Amino acid sequence: MDFTKIRCFLETCDNVTILTHKSPDGDTLGAGFALCRFLRNCGKMANVINSDEFPERYNFLYEECEPQKFEEKTVIAVDIADTKLIGSRLARYAEEGMIDLCIDHHVSNKYFAKYTYVNASASATCQIMYELFNFMGTKIDRQMARCLYTGIATDTGCFKFENTTSAAHIACAELMKYNIDFATINRKMFDVKSKARINIEQAVTNKMEYFFGGKCAVIAITTDMMKKSGIEPAEFEGLASIPLQVEGVEMGITIKQRHENVYKISVRTIETIDASKFCREFGGGGHIRAAGCEIEGSFEEVKNTLVNAAKEVFEG
Amino acid sequence: MDFTKIRCFLETCDNVTILTHKSPDGDTLGAGFALCRFLRNCGKMANVINSDEFPERYNFLYEECEPQKFEEKTVIAVDIADTKLIGSRLARYAEEGMIDLCIDHHVSNKYFAKYTYVNASASATCQIMYELFNFMGTKIDRQMARCLYTGIATDTGCFKFENTTSAAHIACAELMKYNIDFATINRKMFDVKSKARINIEQAVTNKMEYFFGGKCAVIAITTDMMKKSGIEPAEFEGLASIPLQVEGVEMGITIKQRHENVYKISVRTIETIDASKFCREFGGGGHIRAAGCEIEGSFEEVKNTLVNAAKEVFEG
Repeated sequence: MDFTKIRCFLETCDNVTILTHKSPDGDTLGAGFALCRFLRNCGKMANVINSDEFPERYNFLYEECEPQKFEEKTVIAVDIADTKLIGSRLARYAEEGMIDLCIDHHVSNKYFAKYTYVNASASATCQIMYELFNFMGTKIDRQMARCLYTGIATDTGCFKFENTTSAAHIACAELMKYNIDFATINRKMFDVKSKARINIEQAVTNKMEYFFGGKCAVIAITTDMMKKSGIEPAEFEGLASIPLQVEGVEMGITIKQRHENVYKISVRTIETIDASKFCREFGGGGHIRAAGCEIEGSFEEVKNTLVNAAKEVFEG
Repeated sequence: MDFTKIRCFLETCDNVTILTHKSPDGDTLGAGFALCRFLRNCGKMANVINSDEFPERYNFLYEECEPQKFEEKTVIAVDIADTKLIGSRLARYAEEGMIDLCIDHHVSNKYFAKYTYVNASASATCQIMYELFNFMGTKIDRQMARCLYTGIATDTGCFKFENTTSAAHIACAELMKYNIDFATINRKMFDVKSKARINIEQAVTNKMEYFFGGKCAVIAITTDMMKKSGIEPAEFEGLASIPLQVEGVEMGITIKQRHENVYKISVRTIETIDASKFCREFGGGGHIRAAGCEIEGSFEEVKNTLVNAAKEVFEG
């Protein structure tokens, strides 16, 4: 599928349901609502749906896009690499082969739709959407620009991470010309935290343990800490990045309690340490800088297992 | 002064001292070292100097630019709006009228040099330098690109703040093409904190007080807290932004102890609250979103004075 074919597809489709991935983030929602608005601006019917509720923190993306009533004829998935990410409530869309088109930027895309467009070098699906609208000569409106900017900004950590491309900067340079409130969006996306989130960050930081001359830091998140802080599951995102914020730390290990003796491990690394290789030892995997696995045992056992494995990394 | 004249100036000058502002930041150092490298690449002699020591955190900007020995013939100031910002050790440059050219992006520039170029709509002096090099057809090298990227990123809070322009994004889109380690730079500039900094952030957050239904938050930084945390003065930057990180807070007041009964107040606001107007009541001033003043009295007296004044803001 190329942009010319997507244009044909979008021109001829109608009554469109846009699927976004479960635990929705700024990119899937930004791409979904920008596409929805584009279709409605063309006089078509369109809705964005999700297996979960749309999180309150993204309300500025969806509040100008009330659901419409229509008989669904077309299904488009955005930013969904795998049918597993659709979520149980909407799983039938995959099971019944109802997904017509998928637009995505994940290299791991499983090509589950009838037609698929993947650009794995794009920083975000919203960057692809921007380039598609550009190609089609679409009149982007301010709300579409807000959606697309949000997706690119959130998927790149506000242009901070390695996945940020020149094209992402250029797209946002153009999107800013629609007089969008990007500073307010960025404040909401990156700076503001709930009191519960601040509480758990503090609790976690206070109990951080350092190993190997401060190069490895371990944090624990117990079910008890989660309850006490009053944090919502949606606010957990990014806690695993806390250890790497400390000067000198090259490997951060987060031990998060799932059940009584089951822990989910998240590993974050910088420089040359391979987090994925580290986690594979425990049956997990992921990327070179961010990976995970699950280990059973008491907290102390799990921690000791991980620190012993990290000893290999730091002391060879 | 326009770009054509600056080109003439740079082509004909030699033995150049580049002045950067005291308490140097990424923009003044980025602009200074990019210019220094450009001049050296042209076969000229050039040094960057500062009234203070170059902070360790910016070592990647200056470590490839060892001082040269020469008889100074030309002096260029970068990112310096006012001679007061040169610092005492180098004050003679202003007092003796030795500054030939100043390149800056502050609207408040005092035009103290023989020639001045100000573009107040630029996000950073490094953005001006990028556009100047572009205009001159300069061959930018990787280290120059790192310097310019750092200045733009740091002055815009990594493209997060309101002062970020489309031109800033476009400049960085181009600078990234020099294969710079922007993600490592951003991590160092925005994510990594010393243990001392983490300690004081926690101490400050733990004692944060809320007023007017959580819309106003007050933090205190006492000399005692500073001593206990072991924090360096260079690491204080940005503590005043902590209150506004809490959901619902519209006005953050930071009360920082100067001496026994003297406190420096920093006010940060969002939405419609005028921080500058608030601080003017106490003989201070600043910008609409960030302002300051100094108040004498005991800590409790100072806090009560400020909260009473804030009552006007929130309860009219």
